[in-house]
Amino acid sequence: MKPYSEMTIDELKNTLETEKARYEEFKARGISLDMSRGMPSKAQLDLSEGLLTVLSKNEDCRTEGGTDCRNYGCVEGIPEARKLMGELMGAPADQVIVCGNASLNIMFDTVSRGFTHGFLGSTPWSKLDKVKFLCPVPGYDRHFGVTEYFGVEMINIPMTDEGPDMDLVEKYVNTDPAVKGIWCVPKYSNPQGIVYSKETVERFSKLQPAAKDFRIFWDNAYALHRLATEPDERDELANILERCEANGNPDMVFLFASTSKITYAGAGIAAFASSKANVAEMKKHMSFQIISHDKINQLRHVKFFKDFNGMKMQMDKHAGFMRPKFMLVNAILKKELEGLGISRYTLPRGGYFISFDAMEGCAKKIVNMAKEAGLVLTGAGATFPYHNDPHDSNIRIAPSMPEKDELEQASYLFANCVKIASLEKLIAEKA
Amino acid sequence: MKPYSEMTIDELKNTLETEKARYEEFKARGISLDMSRGMPSKAQLDLSEGLLTVLSKNEDCRTEGGTDCRNYGCVEGIPEARKLMGELMGAPADQVIVCGNASLNIMFDTVSRGFTHGFLGSTPWSKLDKVKFLCPVPGYDRHFGVTEYFGVEMINIPMTDEGPDMDLVEKYVNTDPAVKGIWCVPKYSNPQGIVYSKETVERFSKLQPAAKDFRIFWDNAYALHRLATEPDERDELANILERCEANGNPDMVFLFASTSKITYAGAGIAAFASSKANVAEMKKHMSFQIISHDKINQLRHVKFFKDFNGMKMQMDKHAGFMRPKFMLVNAILKKELEGLGISRYTLPRGGYFISFDAMEGCAKKIVNMAKEAGLVLTGAGATFPYHNDPHDSNIRIAPSMPEKDELEQASYLFANCVKIASLEKLIAEKA
Repeated sequence: MKPYSEMTIDELKNTLETEKARYEEFKARGISLDMSRGMPSKAQLDLSEGLLTVLSKNEDCRTEGGTDCRNYGCVEGIPEARKLMGELMGAPADQVIVCGNASLNIMFDTVSRGFTHGFLGSTPWSKLDKVKFLCPVPGYDRHFGVTEYFGVEMINIPMTDEGPDMDLVEKYVNTDPAVKGIWCVPKYSNPQGIVYSKETVERFSKLQPAAKDFRIFWDNAYALHRLATEPDERDELANILERCEANGNPDMVFLFASTSKITYAGAGIAAFASSKANVAEMKKHMSFQIISHDKINQLRHVKFFKDFNGMKMQMDKHAGFMRPKFMLVNAILKKELEGLGISRYTLPRGGYFISFDAMEGCAKKIVNMAKEAGLVLTGAGATFPYHNDPHDSNIRIAPSMPEKDELEQASYLFANCVKIASLEKLIAEKA
Repeated sequence: MKPYSEMTIDELKNTLETEKARYEEFKARGISLDMSRGMPSKAQLDLSEGLLTVLSKNEDCRTEGGTDCRNYGCVEGIPEARKLMGELMGAPADQVIVCGNASLNIMFDTVSRGFTHGFLGSTPWSKLDKVKFLCPVPGYDRHFGVTEYFGVEMINIPMTDEGPDMDLVEKYVNTDPAVKGIWCVPKYSNPQGIVYSKETVERFSKLQPAAKDFRIFWDNAYALHRLATEPDERDELANILERCEANGNPDMVFLFASTSKITYAGAGIAAFASSKANVAEMKKHMSFQIISHDKINQLRHVKFFKDFNGMKMQMDKHAGFMRPKFMLVNAILKKELEGLGISRYTLPRGGYFISFDAMEGCAKKIVNMAKEAGLVLTGAGATFPYHNDPHDSNIRIAPSMPEKDELEQASYLFANCVKIASLEKLIAEKA
């Protein structure tokens, strides 16, 4: 197809007319679709039915060590669950704490703890004039929400194909003592699906922070969430915990993970891992906060999966549902937009999103148009701190939840909105 | 029996010799018992077996309104659970937020929020030089632990038979703007089992705090935990939320409750209730902290109990297990200690504890002696802020967990330790 930029003003106007007519057709259909959040579909949730009854009798509720999971105690989580989540996170069981159903909650609490108590003897952040976090962009809106809520100054760090721009990360972390953290989704990053390269992880582990309480918030939410279903197509992420220890920075990284997108988005188990010193301090903190998290649900997960391999097998089934959806969206975008020179996007190797870059200044318009026609997308700007995408270009597409027919319809509508916004921009520029 | 205080020094010494011989017998038995925490017994936990499988199929996991509890969303909890917990707490469903498994966690987070963000526009406590909490004593050690952890100055308020000494509460709250909160267990208080009188609740609701962000932390942990099993023997607690609203202080109280001692201590559901304004602010806070708590477990509880009456019926069964244990301990203490003039204790009407007051300066000694003979009691002083009982007198006895034989043994051993410590004190005084 002819790139829009090579079209004459009349060609642009004619194309716009055609696309606007299509848009009116979409609107007339009374579509009502939500692609705003990375939610597993019903079929994916159904995979975990066995979790509901894997503990069904009173006597099922004991750990191997004899702990009655129904009662109080074991604030750090049951040993079996620490081992399982440790394998997921690349951490020894005794450096893992298993909590409730949400890793976001652990991250929020950890930032909160930074403010109220500090880490390993450092000054609580609430006593400082300024606290800054580095935010690889585009990134996960809820990460940015946590730091915004605590009044942290957020600094955009552009993503590359290998992870965050490490030159910039090193510059900030190694020179500015107000920089206390960085948000990372190291594997199948939200929203781009980028896997941090071995070199990126190595450079992270070799940081020389100006602030001794600088921490990498390593949210490995999609550790097992590849879209490929072939056994050999696994993307490897270097072990940040091991690398930090090897490079003399054992306490520099906090790891987070959950089974929210492995079993139940709303009723999984979540975990924290770090150095022995950080884990001991976290455990002490928790001993004031809670007597114990839901150990029954921890045991349910252990019994349901049996072992880490069981978890991986379940994820292959998830990929079986996810992959065709991503392929479908990708195929329609390709068919509709290829060669027009008005967008960039990739078919990711894993994760929950397709990151779509429209022409500068078009994202908000596209999202609004889609919404008017009944398709809710993640708000434009959400993938940036303060909801402020400086180029108004990035849109996060979440294909997991809708069924195939809906997804097809949504993808065509989306492409249609992209075309209209781009055409209007080009026409305005030429006028 | 003759009061020890009327004994001659020789009588005291002879009695001591006899009791010490008994103590050695106890020690020789190799006892290993834990009465330190208010933990439900196995038999009590077994009552909730149905909770494990009440949701057993994929299609069971939807709320009446159609929400899929397995997925994300509904940060305030499912409507059915808000209604159920609201009935337990005396609050309308829309003023209730249902969270995870632990009310302590909600209380901790609420204090933490006071420090990081403040309430309804007030200055965050972390920005103040001094924050004080009133602590009715004896009280719940984990409450005091939370405020100690945040560096709050804790002020002891003596308990009366009607609740905290309200003259003192009014004096502090109405004059000192640094007083930001008070910890209350208003029904079957921990450890004394006192029910706050109607007048006490009324005086609470009519406080005129010097600090507009003063909050009553109303932990109604034992709302349904009477020991009597007769239908007509119910203790009524006035509705603090309604009274605060009626008296122009709608935002002054935070209510907390859980099913930890109704279903599973480690895997129940917990809730927060307050005014509309406080609940809206809490919900906003939570929207940064978590996407949703475990709604599956919320729905399990709703389906298991069917309605609030179902919960009350379950509690009558609990009372059937608890009451004989309390009666047994009480009978042995009476048999062993009555008339000796060395102790005060009551058979409470509800809750999880017997509060025992030994002679001044004897509590630590008694707890240590019991421990040496194999009986772990709550640490002496634990019922006071900073673990500091100024009279070294109060001991919290938790009879729920041991079986009858163990409990009998433990009660005799305990009485024996009380006698020895008292005799040694009296002999030292006479010497």
